[in-house]
Amino acid sequence: MRTARMENGTVTMTLGEVDRLARRVLTQHGLSGDHVDAVARTIVAGERDGSASHGVYRLLVAVNTLRTGKVDPAIEPIITRPAPALVKADAGGAFAQLAIERALPVLVDSARTNGIAALAVNRCIHFAALWPEVEMVVAEGLVALATTPSHAWVAPAGGHRPLLGTNPIAFGWPRPGGSPFVFDFATSAAARGEIELHRRAGKPIPAGWGLDADGQPTTDAQAALDGAMLTWGGHKGSALSIMVELIAGPLIGDLTSAESMAWDAGAGASPYGGELIVAIDPAGFLGPAAAEHLARAETLFGAMAAQGARLPGARRHANRAVSMEEGVRIPSALHRDILALLDTGG
Amino acid sequence: MRTARMENGTVTMTLGEVDRLARRVLTQHGLSGDHVDAVARTIVAGERDGSASHGVYRLLVAVNTLRTGKVDPAIEPIITRPAPALVKADAGGAFAQLAIERALPVLVDSARTNGIAALAVNRCIHFAALWPEVEMVVAEGLVALATTPSHAWVAPAGGHRPLLGTNPIAFGWPRPGGSPFVFDFATSAAARGEIELHRRAGKPIPAGWGLDADGQPTTDAQAALDGAMLTWGGHKGSALSIMVELIAGPLIGDLTSAESMAWDAGAGASPYGGELIVAIDPAGFLGPAAAEHLARAETLFGAMAAQGARLPGARRHANRAVSMEEGVRIPSALHRDILALLDTGG
Repeated sequence: MRTARMENGTVTMTLGEVDRLARRVLTQHGLSGDHVDAVARTIVAGERDGSASHGVYRLLVAVNTLRTGKVDPAIEPIITRPAPALVKADAGGAFAQLAIERALPVLVDSARTNGIAALAVNRCIHFAALWPEVEMVVAEGLVALATTPSHAWVAPAGGHRPLLGTNPIAFGWPRPGGSPFVFDFATSAAARGEIELHRRAGKPIPAGWGLDADGQPTTDAQAALDGAMLTWGGHKGSALSIMVELIAGPLIGDLTSAESMAWDAGAGASPYGGELIVAIDPAGFLGPAAAEHLARAETLFGAMAAQGARLPGARRHANRAVSMEEGVRIPSALHRDILALLDTGG
Repeated sequence: MRTARMENGTVTMTLGEVDRLARRVLTQHGLSGDHVDAVARTIVAGERDGSASHGVYRLLVAVNTLRTGKVDPAIEPIITRPAPALVKADAGGAFAQLAIERALPVLVDSARTNGIAALAVNRCIHFAALWPEVEMVVAEGLVALATTPSHAWVAPAGGHRPLLGTNPIAFGWPRPGGSPFVFDFATSAAARGEIELHRRAGKPIPAGWGLDADGQPTTDAQAALDGAMLTWGGHKGSALSIMVELIAGPLIGDLTSAESMAWDAGAGASPYGGELIVAIDPAGFLGPAAAEHLARAETLFGAMAAQGARLPGARRHANRAVSMEEGVRIPSALHRDILALLDTGG
């Protein structure tokens, strides 16, 4: 495998090289069929968009999960429609990506017919960001909201022991002729991957990210990983995190973060459970006036930019443009760790 | 009008007395028909549940809006169904409450049929909290999410001029045999009513709530009211606030907070625009297994309580129980201001 350039502790790779590396690693560790495409696509997209915690670093996470035997590497998802505006994708214990890719066209179709529709992705192993599926729905001209629990890593506001997941919420809005408005953030003070990257780098974490195993505030990354992460935004962030547990857990017949953690039983696999994706068709409420009203949203975005406020997702799309031209830079140590997976798999 | 007891600068009233006072004030200032019932019910509910900023204080706000002539005091809402899972309630420039009350049964019916459904309340004057309608949906055994823009009072993260509304998000989850899990919070650092109550009391506001007209941080309530409020939770809270602008503004063909402010043109009326309410039927995804999965949510709530974390909405329901037994205490100065409205209306 060619690795294009090495300098200053980084390795520069084209997106094609990242894709081939990801496929080779995943295949060698037993992932098969269309799952390889779907998972590699997500990892390339994360690296391409400048997300250190959701790019090739996730190959280590995915391989670790494959090694635990907690993920089915081959099963095909089953798509059903339990109600006119509901879609269900049973991933059967596989990684989430393929089930999502197969079910999204059904969700989009249902949203166009009914005005609004919801997709439950069930029984999936989840290690990825949510914005890839949000962007896929938005590319069809629809508004999208996605969320998923994770493992019980985060203490609720007022508590001190892990109970909630990092429970991301992602939202996307179509912008005719421009990059979509998309945000995707954890309801924890930081993403777990960010804390893991601090640990790898030997750096302290900011105050407010975590508690140690005794429930005391800590800036030690390992201590926070062993203790409890904190929610973002105090009791409001905690309330949103609980909402995520409920609507992407029991509401869709799937696990809470605490149940996912119990299922893992110390194996160290990625979270197991469900994801909820809601799609709304602007033409549903607006009919032929949709374009006129979407233009008013552009006025809002313009007013934000005029006072120097950053649009969520703008940095990701700027990174994307650079990555497609110049490739991506991966820390050499991380690159070595990934290449080492090629010697140990199969 | 009998006012039960006065002591220590407060007036104690039964909920029945609050209701009669509210109806009398609203009627005297021109509100008519079923609007009086619907608006009074919301104000009584706020006072009953211990919300100082959404109780009888809002009578001053409602009367102020009636006096501006910016609200239609009598028009009947029109309910339509633009798509199988969408409901539209055109309030026609009236207060939101009656349109919501009339449309909610249609929303609930659509959610039961389709699994998920959305209600757009359009062209309404909005001064109330969102949890009353969320509780109404939840009382039918459904999950509910509600949101609305307001006036452009809040600066986006990274900006310094008002553009966004206080943009509350409310969510409710049914709990068999118990008070529902319901939260309702502003995506601004504080509700505007809270800042107004600080101003009335001559108290400084906490740091982080507002900027003065020059874009500088301030703890002066009036300066923040004249300048810009801040979003809660930094760029994540700001992102959620923008989402609210989009999904309860252009997506439903209604005004953004900046457009509402422009429409007001300095009159000082409450915000004018739309509200989006989404309802999901747990039986849609779960069928007869719904009860079993709702029981897993109770396990989550139990685990929160076990580590001392407060459940959102619990304080409101505790206040409600006390208010129904003992009545409510209203600051004497506020009570006098409300009684004064009876001398100036009609």
